[in-house]
Amino acid sequence: MNRLYHYPLSPFSRKVRLSLAEKRIEVELVEERYWEQDADFLRRNPAGKVPILKMGNRTMADSTAICEYLEETHPTPPLLPQGADSRYEVRRLVAWFDDKFNDEVTTKLMGERVFRKVMGTGYPDSANVKAGSKAVKYHLDYMHWLLDQRRWLAGNEMSLADFAAAAHLSCLDYVSDVDWNRSAIVKDWYAKIKSRPAFRSILADQISGFPQPAHYNDLDF
Amino acid sequence: MNRLYHYPLSPFSRKVRLSLAEKRIEVELVEERYWEQDADFLRRNPAGKVPILKMGNRTMADSTAICEYLEETHPTPPLLPQGADSRYEVRRLVAWFDDKFNDEVTTKLMGERVFRKVMGTGYPDSANVKAGSKAVKYHLDYMHWLLDQRRWLAGNEMSLADFAAAAHLSCLDYVSDVDWNRSAIVKDWYAKIKSRPAFRSILADQISGFPQPAHYNDLDF
Repeated sequence: MNRLYHYPLSPFSRKVRLSLAEKRIEVELVEERYWEQDADFLRRNPAGKVPILKMGNRTMADSTAICEYLEETHPTPPLLPQGADSRYEVRRLVAWFDDKFNDEVTTKLMGERVFRKVMGTGYPDSANVKAGSKAVKYHLDYMHWLLDQRRWLAGNEMSLADFAAAAHLSCLDYVSDVDWNRSAIVKDWYAKIKSRPAFRSILADQISGFPQPAHYNDLDF
Repeated sequence: MNRLYHYPLSPFSRKVRLSLAEKRIEVELVEERYWEQDADFLRRNPAGKVPILKMGNRTMADSTAICEYLEETHPTPPLLPQGADSRYEVRRLVAWFDDKFNDEVTTKLMGERVFRKVMGTGYPDSANVKAGSKAVKYHLDYMHWLLDQRRWLAGNEMSLADFAAAAHLSCLDYVSDVDWNRSAIVKDWYAKIKSRPAFRSILADQISGFPQPAHYNDLDF
């Protein structure tokens, strides 16, 4: 049985979960409190991060390398389009969310409001929370601008770029940090993603100490 | 003419320069003081980072997305091997250097010792420099462990993983932050990379305020 070591509110884990589910690759989920870095976990991944995917006798780390691997070994349905130009645009946007959005928004909001409590590293830094709340607006506006020209974020087909974005936004949405009224276009896009079968397991996530808000798994949010 | 907006001591720029040179794609280098974020530059790349590659009428950002694009459009010589397993290993290691090594070493040493001076953001934080000096040893040992089993970092063929690693290490080497006596195997690997024609432009880099040390461009360092 394939196994994914993950943390429910890790956007990198969620991106891989969405890819696996979309490609109908069955996997057993194992929650990993990766910051506690026990010896067994570090043996599986010396980088000390989630997700880690165990498939057959391979143990794989790094969400982007894993998604490229899944695309090469399970090409249907495709999450990267045909053509170098279109593939570039997907990869650029995956990096946009996993690097820039993560630095400017996810670590500032989730990092301060959730992970500090879960990991026991003190009180939220309000300057970070404020910076994250400001930055998320700019990113939603950028998504609005993209989606105003295209059906999906990187083009007219759904791709890994949509999953990367939805992975971050769904984590923030779990703690009610997304103002869906800012853009009807972005809200429609999220409603489309949210109603996919691949999203079900993510909508069922429960994090102890953080009850799921009512709108989180509501398809008519 | 293709054009690469870069900064000489940016490892992400260097990784792309090495890929371009290895694939014999001619490119004009334009030094970009990206942290000054002038309007023209931000128009080219809203992420506000280097490198940016202009090829024909395309302007591309994100070093990993660019390298994948170059691999797809200029497959010879290959910098990703055949076979999903081998390709995964290359991508995992590229991410290892661009994420983990960058966070733990490059930003701690280069960030404090060079970029603070160049960008005018104050004095080095000695705790960061100390942490970086400690972490680089662990990474050199990890490279030693890999290279003890393989000819190159990700397997028996040179790949993008070697270029990612050499990009970071060559930046550190410019400010003499690599102890090449720690591992003869790692030193031999770097000597092989350093002597490639693709490396010449990197060995010729000069950064104002930071004179090149004698060993930096010496093939018998």
